[in-house]
Amino acid sequence: MKKSLLAIALLGTCAGMAQAQSNVQIYGTIDAGLIKRSDQTLNIGKRAANTLGFKGSEELGNGLKAIFQLEIRYEPDTGTVEVGGNGAQRPLFQGESRVGLQGDFGMVRIGRGLSPLQQTIMAFEPFHGLPSPAGFYTDVAVAGYTSDPLSIAGNSNNRWSNAVWYNTPNFNGFQFNSAVGTKEANNGPVIVGRGTTLAPQYPANSQASANPYSLNGTYTNGPLGAMLAYERNAVETKMYTLGASYLPIPELKLMGTYSHQDRDHTFAINSDVKAWVLGVNYIMGPGKLLAGYGRKTPDGQPATKQLSLGYEYSLSKRTYLYVDASRKKGAVGATTVNSTVNHYDLGVNHSF
Amino acid sequence: MKKSLLAIALLGTCAGMAQAQSNVQIYGTIDAGLIKRSDQTLNIGKRAANTLGFKGSEELGNGLKAIFQLEIRYEPDTGTVEVGGNGAQRPLFQGESRVGLQGDFGMVRIGRGLSPLQQTIMAFEPFHGLPSPAGFYTDVAVAGYTSDPLSIAGNSNNRWSNAVWYNTPNFNGFQFNSAVGTKEANNGPVIVGRGTTLAPQYPANSQASANPYSLNGTYTNGPLGAMLAYERNAVETKMYTLGASYLPIPELKLMGTYSHQDRDHTFAINSDVKAWVLGVNYIMGPGKLLAGYGRKTPDGQPATKQLSLGYEYSLSKRTYLYVDASRKKGAVGATTVNSTVNHYDLGVNHSF
Amino acid sequence: MKKSLLAIALLGTCAGMAQAQSNVQIYGTIDAGLIKRSDQTLNIGKRAANTLGFKGSEELGNGLKAIFQLEIRYEPDTGTVEVGGNGAQRPLFQGESRVGLQGDFGMVRIGRGLSPLQQTIMAFEPFHGLPSPAGFYTDVAVAGYTSDPLSIAGNSNNRWSNAVWYNTPNFNGFQFNSAVGTKEANNGPVIVGRGTTLAPQYPANSQASANPYSLNGTYTNGPLGAMLAYERNAVETKMYTLGASYLPIPELKLMGTYSHQDRDHTFAINSDVKAWVLGVNYIMGPGKLLAGYGRKTPDGQPATKQLSLGYEYSLSKRTYLYVDASRKKGAVGATTVNSTVNHYDLGVNHSF
Repeated sequence: MKKSLLAIALLGTCAGMAQAQSNVQIYGTIDAGLIKRSDQTLNIGKRAANTLGFKGSEELGNGLKAIFQLEIRYEPDTGTVEVGGNGAQRPLFQGESRVGLQGDFGMVRIGRGLSPLQQTIMAFEPFHGLPSPAGFYTDVAVAGYTSDPLSIAGNSNNRWSNAVWYNTPNFNGFQFNSAVGTKEANNGPVIVGRGTTLAPQYPANSQASANPYSLNGTYTNGPLGAMLAYERNAVETKMYTLGASYLPIPELKLMGTYSHQDRDHTFAINSDVKAWVLGVNYIMGPGKLLAGYGRKTPDGQPATKQLSLGYEYSLSKRTYLYVDASRKKGAVGATTVNSTVNHYDLGVNHSF
Repeated sequence: MKKSLLAIALLGTCAGMAQAQSNVQIYGTIDAGLIKRSDQTLNIGKRAANTLGFKGSEELGNGLKAIFQLEIRYEPDTGTVEVGGNGAQRPLFQGESRVGLQGDFGMVRIGRGLSPLQQTIMAFEPFHGLPSPAGFYTDVAVAGYTSDPLSIAGNSNNRWSNAVWYNTPNFNGFQFNSAVGTKEANNGPVIVGRGTTLAPQYPANSQASANPYSLNGTYTNGPLGAMLAYERNAVETKMYTLGASYLPIPELKLMGTYSHQDRDHTFAINSDVKAWVLGVNYIMGPGKLLAGYGRKTPDGQPATKQLSLGYEYSLSKRTYLYVDASRKKGAVGATTVNSTVNHYDLGVNHSF
Repeated sequence: MKKSLLAIALLGTCAGMAQAQSNVQIYGTIDAGLIKRSDQTLNIGKRAANTLGFKGSEELGNGLKAIFQLEIRYEPDTGTVEVGGNGAQRPLFQGESRVGLQGDFGMVRIGRGLSPLQQTIMAFEPFHGLPSPAGFYTDVAVAGYTSDPLSIAGNSNNRWSNAVWYNTPNFNGFQFNSAVGTKEANNGPVIVGRGTTLAPQYPANSQASANPYSLNGTYTNGPLGAMLAYERNAVETKMYTLGASYLPIPELKLMGTYSHQDRDHTFAINSDVKAWVLGVNYIMGPGKLLAGYGRKTPDGQPATKQLSLGYEYSLSKRTYLYVDASRKKGAVGATTVNSTVNHYDLGVNHSF
């Protein structure tokens, strides 16, 4: 009888601890490696986003849950908060800062996070949404589109501050995801657009001319997956995206995306950009081969073409080594038009 | 017998884990909602302070404990570290950064934290110290006083860096709380004061002209609570505050504060500001009604009047929804004198 | 039988929790106290580095482990991220940001961390590597050398960004430690060097002229310890260091270092700096006495001499009080030549 009481006491202790611990879960990824770009010195950097996050959920009864997530992003090679392409430091919780409720009705969240289009397209891109130039996610797959033109320059291209998200539950494989942002200003840069240098269409720190919003539907059915998305950003650029994937055998995933960016609101001529990416993932034991080819065609400008090959070797479920080789031809970066850049990397990715 | 040993082994495991975990406790609050101010576009922001904290204590024997607390503050709508009224980012551990010892003698802490006056007055303000304009805490309740005029502009109005705190134990409901700061400079802004633009009384990055200090006593006895406080900041502005609360029934709390700010050291004329706030909280099942009216009267300037109503609906002990409506008339912000501003908000607050 | 099942269920629960928790370990130090420097007002500051860290390891099988460490550094008196001597904020993970693999072959890590020389010399310095001016670590012990001249000014003097580390296993008391950095630019300041103000040897944001690297060997055998190190930084300054320690009785540690900095690559004349430090630690029950004397002699300049005494009193394994008195004579800081500065401090150090 004494033993039984002891065991019950233990149960209490452990249960209590489990509950105390469940309030906040710490998680993250650290990814660093050697990078050689054909026009740069050998450097150390990242292939995946580096995160240190805090998240949790609370049961409220009747199937309702309160949920939150705060995610630090950082640069593993210098220890700084994540920096944008222009070298400016991004927000501390660049990854995500959202709170919300989840229930039978779906999920509502408020704060800062990926736009639904940007979150969804990752599943149809052969480098699973890596920010590395070896992947297609941040440029070719989205036809060079930015979800967030009116935040601090370099802040992010695929996230929204000051927005509300709604996701439906999954209905027989269908899910609908949406978000809408406020018009409030967020220290954005000057966008000349259809104006002039003296009277830009969007002066510095402009409010949005219309509420940005993003709508998409996803469908999964056995080996088949598909998405259809529409998004309009704060300067009324419109984005249409299609994605599909198919697994003829469990080890092989074929996928593709098509994106059409319509910048008519801010471009007098050459306002559209179209892009497509085809990709394949092939699993061989602990190894995974990634390959893709894509093309981005801005109106009146030469196309950008990218070919990328990658290999990931898993040491465990949480740790893998990687190597990539990629060639990009065309407009690479803002100032280099019609150049060819080769990118090679080799590194380690560890999740915790 | 084997079971018993197993149980003891389990006890050891769990106890060891509990001990390991007790070193650092992670806690925080995320609060976000929709805000509409009568002269601004609809925006997303906070009502309460948003925190992510790390704290712990260690038993040292003889009733002595070592204690520490580090508290990140952030903006949930943009993911940045908390920003001040001027848009400048505040310190990472804006909320608190203190270490100290606690024992029979009371508690001594060193570092950065709320001044004793600012920490105590929250209990007598009807919006429990919320930084939201719907509450009275940051302006009317303290007669527009700032505890920290010589830190980086926008850094905080109610915290001290470089200070030592001492709190007595509770003697039959009485407690005495105090803090004293050093004179060291902390990148403060120019304060012209009784000087001239060319020869300001406090040039940029000035040292304090006297050590800032804060003294207060609190008293609680059943349904009755009271405070009496005196504080002098780094530019020798003096602040006198009285507060009282009474609960005629457990569901109803009546409260009020009176504050008198004396800026004689830096103002040649019109140096005093007086203010009072009356408030009520009423609990109705999971709901709580908050209401208050306050008035701030600076010498030689029109008074600021504020009326606020709020409602909090608890989904659990850790999560509540809220809605507020508030009207403020008079000097609202530095540049808008004699205007009327209405503030509405609607959101969710989740603690973890 | 039921009890047994319960116990097994408990074992499962606890084991599961232990595993979940083992992914990330949170640790840190908070150290704050009163500081009086003879030419400054009394201030509050730190003696040791203040840290909040996240680390973990994962067993990969065959003795292989994945390891990571992310370490925030902060100022306890103001709550900011750690600031450099010039007041500029350092990276968020200033302490460390590394990921790697450990096995029978030793340990390989990539990211940002202490250079091997800087990490090793701490064990031979009487104030165990404290950044406080009471200790010798950051100046006299390393002959005024900086490991990182081409990062943002004030970033750090003893850390490398963008580097790879390799440590051998311990062979009968011998261990070999090494690191090599890339040449990539990191927003470094102008270094005139052997150039002119108009044509500096290293303009702002220069790449390294050669890969920085650091090599050292350590030896421990009972009461004896020794190190031998060579390092070359990004502007090709060379550093040679010897260190030794001896414990005649377990309570007494005698130690010394000799360092020679060769700045020939950037200095046309007076390129060398030599320095030595002798020290002693003596344990008396819960107390520990620290004492040291050192001398730094730059070619063609007067020597800097430092005498320091300290005392640490342990309240527990994780918490101690300290008091120091130190006198430094000579070139103290960049602008004060041939001055004498006394430094006193008194504070508390708590690890969690």
